[in-house]
Amino acid sequence: MRAPAVHRRRDLPDRVRIYEVGPRDGLQNEAAVVPTGTKVEFIERLVAAGLRTVEATSFVSPKWVPQLGDADSLFPMLPARADVRFPVLVPNLAGLERARAVGVDHIAVFAAATETFSRRNLNRSLDEAIEGFAAVVGEARKAGMWVRSYLSMCFGDPWEGEVDVSQVVDVALRLVGQGCNEICIADTIGVATPGHVHDLLDSLVGAGVATSDMAVHFHDTYGQALSNTLAALEAGVTTVDSSAGGLGGCPYAESATGNLATEDLVWLLSGLGIETGVDLEALVATSAWMGDQLGRPSPSRVVKALQERSAPERSEP
Amino acid sequence: MRAPAVHRRRDLPDRVRIYEVGPRDGLQNEAAVVPTGTKVEFIERLVAAGLRTVEATSFVSPKWVPQLGDADSLFPMLPARADVRFPVLVPNLAGLERARAVGVDHIAVFAAATETFSRRNLNRSLDEAIEGFAAVVGEARKAGMWVRSYLSMCFGDPWEGEVDVSQVVDVALRLVGQGCNEICIADTIGVATPGHVHDLLDSLVGAGVATSDMAVHFHDTYGQALSNTLAALEAGVTTVDSSAGGLGGCPYAESATGNLATEDLVWLLSGLGIETGVDLEALVATSAWMGDQLGRPSPSRVVKALQERSAPERSEP
Repeated sequence: MRAPAVHRRRDLPDRVRIYEVGPRDGLQNEAAVVPTGTKVEFIERLVAAGLRTVEATSFVSPKWVPQLGDADSLFPMLPARADVRFPVLVPNLAGLERARAVGVDHIAVFAAATETFSRRNLNRSLDEAIEGFAAVVGEARKAGMWVRSYLSMCFGDPWEGEVDVSQVVDVALRLVGQGCNEICIADTIGVATPGHVHDLLDSLVGAGVATSDMAVHFHDTYGQALSNTLAALEAGVTTVDSSAGGLGGCPYAESATGNLATEDLVWLLSGLGIETGVDLEALVATSAWMGDQLGRPSPSRVVKALQERSAPERSEP
Repeated sequence: MRAPAVHRRRDLPDRVRIYEVGPRDGLQNEAAVVPTGTKVEFIERLVAAGLRTVEATSFVSPKWVPQLGDADSLFPMLPARADVRFPVLVPNLAGLERARAVGVDHIAVFAAATETFSRRNLNRSLDEAIEGFAAVVGEARKAGMWVRSYLSMCFGDPWEGEVDVSQVVDVALRLVGQGCNEICIADTIGVATPGHVHDLLDSLVGAGVATSDMAVHFHDTYGQALSNTLAALEAGVTTVDSSAGGLGGCPYAESATGNLATEDLVWLLSGLGIETGVDLEALVATSAWMGDQLGRPSPSRVVKALQERSAPERSEP
């Protein structure tokens, strides 16, 4: 079977917006630099497959992330379509200026819910980091931009262990207060389970954050990403992050099992009769093609299964 | 983190019985024959890790499945423990006699929900196959044995496509009528999604099959196994099949992604505060050891993640 049977559930939304992170989050950790033209073709194919929100690149310093050092030249090469959003990551005011200079109108900033991760990843205390975003978010909103804030380590932190729901809610409210349009609740190390997802999302709703202003971003490190996504849909969230072909995670590990694969997500949503606008066959072909560019197969189970079905019959027993 | 934070959900059961299929379903397709002593050690380690139902082997003809041709000598070597069940697969009356001769008291028969699969896999029509089980189930029940019937292809069939819920219910009722103690609803090709799981299980309940007499057996071919398990728990099922380390599936494929990995299931259930009695660290160590015996790493994401955390620090960037 090349598509699941459709069985709707009344407690789930009719439509989900997939926020595709492959070109940025997926490629960011690749050791070998991918040519700009290949990245543009990747993004064009994702759009052709029906994705309407594609995080395209990052305006961090090229010194930090050489792979995305071509952001200034890549962005103007993207297709100009009114129905597609190309958000980009912006770490600070310098990045915001570079993004504005090439016509960016959707940005994402990158906050964390824990003190230790903030100090280790952003080299600042949690308070300093959150305060530091105020200027970026304020400037961007004044310029008419749409702003997402990632909130990483919302469930567990490699140094602190379990993260309190109340701490995540506190940081999320500060980001909403700064004017962010969307808060992306991220399980950066993949430890969450569905009850934890319900508890956090329900607490955020209780604190006044609308589910329409939330997104979820799950990692599949412990195989839990899709179950947690189902829990988030049950809680009313309708924006879900995923990475075409499951790109991302640690490129040095034998099998990169970082991001939830967009294909596995689309299989779930299709089976539930939830509209995404995505053509699964075109998406699988895109991820297979990108796997060829990177020289290794996609870790997505749907990509593997549908590619194997497409391959000529083998004579093995 | 080596275990998830615990967040209970009131709509889920307090306790789940894991029906471990690794030694039979997991090893069955392995090309290289595993020595009997290694199989016994595998089973002993699974029991030591807290598993209390372990499908140990199959009394099919050794001509069909040479890997499990040592069933008669293996079974008497298993630990004699009143608190552990060791069901075995039995295909016919000849297999039942062999099983009785070595003291088996829990068996499983293998039915299918579709005509085409029955003809291709069992070489009989669906009606003939179901009728053929009546004698085996009847004899076994008369001898005081506990009987499970697998029901494969409950969601999709490679030749027929989607399988009607009503057809599955019909076959399940016939098996229950024969005296089977447990019906294991299996998604053999891994195509199910959570709405389909709800619809089928609700229909079975509506037809009079108690959830306490059901088990579920999901394959991860399209990455959906754990989400479907969550849906089954929501529907009230409390027996879930899985395979230690994710053993099983097609050994010729690059990464065997057949059975749901017991470790990934235990991570989910632990996070939901659902008791299983399983010691995750001991189980991961067992699957890592078995992977060494088979000469390839476990496809379980939890096994990979916890093994990598255990490895010495690497100097890679």
